[in-house]
Amino acid sequence: MPIYKTGLFAIRYQQNQLIILDQTELPNKISYLKLQNYREVILAIKQLRIRGAPLIGVAAAYSLALESTRKSSNLRNHLKKAAHELKLARPTAVNLSWAIDRMLAIINNNKIVDNKLSTSLIAEAVKIEKQEQANSNKIGQIGAALIKDNMTIMTICNTGWLAAPGIGTALGIIYTAHKQGKRIKVFVLETRPLLQGARLTAFELEQAKIPYTIITDNMMGTFMRNTDIVLTGADRIVQNGDTANKIGTLTLAITSHYYKVPFYVVAPTSSVDLNKKTGKDIIIEERDKNEILYVGKQLIAPKHANACNPAFDITPNNLITGIITEKGILKSSFYKSLSRL
Amino acid sequence: MPIYKTGLFAIRYQQNQLIILDQTELPNKISYLKLQNYREVILAIKQLRIRGAPLIGVAAAYSLALESTRKSSNLRNHLKKAAHELKLARPTAVNLSWAIDRMLAIINNNKIVDNKLSTSLIAEAVKIEKQEQANSNKIGQIGAALIKDNMTIMTICNTGWLAAPGIGTALGIIYTAHKQGKRIKVFVLETRPLLQGARLTAFELEQAKIPYTIITDNMMGTFMRNTDIVLTGADRIVQNGDTANKIGTLTLAITSHYYKVPFYVVAPTSSVDLNKKTGKDIIIEERDKNEILYVGKQLIAPKHANACNPAFDITPNNLITGIITEKGILKSSFYKSLSRL
Repeated sequence: MPIYKTGLFAIRYQQNQLIILDQTELPNKISYLKLQNYREVILAIKQLRIRGAPLIGVAAAYSLALESTRKSSNLRNHLKKAAHELKLARPTAVNLSWAIDRMLAIINNNKIVDNKLSTSLIAEAVKIEKQEQANSNKIGQIGAALIKDNMTIMTICNTGWLAAPGIGTALGIIYTAHKQGKRIKVFVLETRPLLQGARLTAFELEQAKIPYTIITDNMMGTFMRNTDIVLTGADRIVQNGDTANKIGTLTLAITSHYYKVPFYVVAPTSSVDLNKKTGKDIIIEERDKNEILYVGKQLIAPKHANACNPAFDITPNNLITGIITEKGILKSSFYKSLSRL
Repeated sequence: MPIYKTGLFAIRYQQNQLIILDQTELPNKISYLKLQNYREVILAIKQLRIRGAPLIGVAAAYSLALESTRKSSNLRNHLKKAAHELKLARPTAVNLSWAIDRMLAIINNNKIVDNKLSTSLIAEAVKIEKQEQANSNKIGQIGAALIKDNMTIMTICNTGWLAAPGIGTALGIIYTAHKQGKRIKVFVLETRPLLQGARLTAFELEQAKIPYTIITDNMMGTFMRNTDIVLTGADRIVQNGDTANKIGTLTLAITSHYYKVPFYVVAPTSSVDLNKKTGKDIIIEERDKNEILYVGKQLIAPKHANACNPAFDITPNNLITGIITEKGILKSSFYKSLSRL
C-alpha cells in the first residue's frame, strides 16, 4: 500500500532482525528500532513501541522465528519458554496468543526435524503476515461497501497500517473507500491517555491526504450528530459478540446508540476468541497511572494524584450494529454467526 | 471555607487591585497575579487564568469597581465602554453579563452623584460576591441532601472554590456532604483539552482530603457502572432547561442516561438566562485548535493537523434529572419551574 505509507513500514523481518517503527515517537519523529531477540520484542510490545492487536500477533510470530535463528541446543524448549513469555506481554488482545499458537504448532510438530525448524518457523511467520495483509484488504473491500459518497466517519484509537498488517482494519475501510473515489471525512478521537488517535491516526490520514478533524474524546456527543457511521477496531471478540477494544470504545458505542448512528467493529477473525463466552471473561489490562498523570514528561495533575488506567473496555453486543471481518459482515445474534466462522 | 483552601483564595479585591490565583499554573505552581485595570482582567479571563462561570461574573464586577477608582473625567462613559468589552470576553457563561448588568444599573443611575459612583460600585461588587458565596453555601446544603453515605459521585471540569465564590457549585455539594461526615468517593473526569478536572478539581479534593480518582473522559462509560450520581456545573441554563456547560458534559449526560444514573446540573440562579428559549440560542465559544494539539508546549499531533475546539456543549433538558440552585431543586418541566425563580 505504498500510496499511504510513502516508504514507511510498521514492521519488517530481514536478515534475522525484526525492524519496527517506534510508534511512541510518532508523529513527530520517524525512528526505527532493530530488535535482536524475543525479550526485546516483549519490551517493545509492553512499551507500545509496536501496538495494534493484529500487528502484535505478527510481531510475536516473527520474534519466535528470530529466536529460532539464534540458538541451537535445546531449541524447542527455549522457543516454548519464549512463546509462553510472549503471550503474557499483553493480556487483552487475543491475536497475540493466536499467532503464538500457530508458531507453537510448528514447534511441537515432531515431524519437522531440528535443523529444518527455523526455516519452517520463518515460513509460518511470513505466512501469518501475508494472510493478515490479505485479510485487511478483504475487510477494506467488504467494509467500504457501507461507505457512501460524502459520508463522515468517526473512529477511535489507531487501526491503520500502524496497527495491522496491510492497510489496517477500520482505517483500512477508510483507505479503501477513499481509493474508490468516495469523498469522505473522518472525526479522529484523540484517544486518551496515549493519544493514538491524535498521534497515529492523524499521521496516517495526513499522509493519505484524507480530510480529518481531531477532536477530544469528550466531544463525541457533540460531533456524533454530524457522523454517519462509527468504525472501531477490536482486541478480542468473544462468543456472544461482546468486544474488548481501546478504552473509550464503550462510551463511543453508547453515544452512537443514543444518536442511532451505526456502530461497526472491524477486525480479522484472528481477533475472535470462541473460547470465551461473554465480555466478563476478558482480562482487561490495567496500565501505569502515570500514563494519565503525565503527557510526555509533563505532569498534568497533582504529583501523587490517584488515577485509574484500564487500557481497554468491553462493548456489549447489543450496542454493536455489525462486526466486519474478512469473511463478511456479521449482524446481531452474533453467537450463531461467530460460531460459523 | 478555610478548611478546604488552607490559606489560598481564587480572587480578592484589595487596595484598588484585583488579585487572582493564576489557574493556568495550577496544580504545580501557586502564583498570584495583580490585575491593575479592566483590560488585564479581560485578558486573564480569555486566557483562563481566572475561570468558572460564577467566578468570572464576580471578576468582571470587581474590574468595573477597580476601573472606577482610576479615572475621573468622563467616568460613566469609560465604565460603559469597559462593561461592553468585558461582556465580550467570553460569550457562553451568562454570569458575566449578569454581573455586569448589575454594575451597569449603578453606572446608569443618575441619582448617584459622580463622586459617590466608585464607592457605590465597589459596594455592589462586594455584594455580588457575598451573595454568590451565600448561594454556594445554600446550594451545598440543598444538594448534599441527595448524597448518601458511601456514594460515588462523578464530575467533570472544576466547580469548586476555583470556579465560584465560596465553596463552589457541584464541588460545593461534595464539600458539604463530606463535612456532614458522609463517606464519599469522587470520579474526576480529567476534562480535555485544558484538563480542569485533573489539574484543578484533583487539586481541590487533595487539599480537602476527599478520596478521588482521576479518569480520562473516555472512561466515563466504564466507571459509570460504579457511580451513584453525576454532578456538573453550568455556564448557561435557558428557559426550557437546556444547559451549556464544559465540553464533554453532553457525552456525560448521554452515558448517565444509558446507565440510569441521576444527572444533576448545579448552578446559582445567576447562571439562568430566561431570555433564551432553547439550547440552540446559546453561542458556543470556539477556542484555538492549539489547545488540543499542544499539551503545555508539547505537540501531540502532526504539526498542521486539523482540529475542532468548541469549549462548551449543550445538554438537552430531557437528559437532566434536576437542576440544583440556591432556591431549590428543579425537576422536569423546567420551563415552568425556571420561570418561577
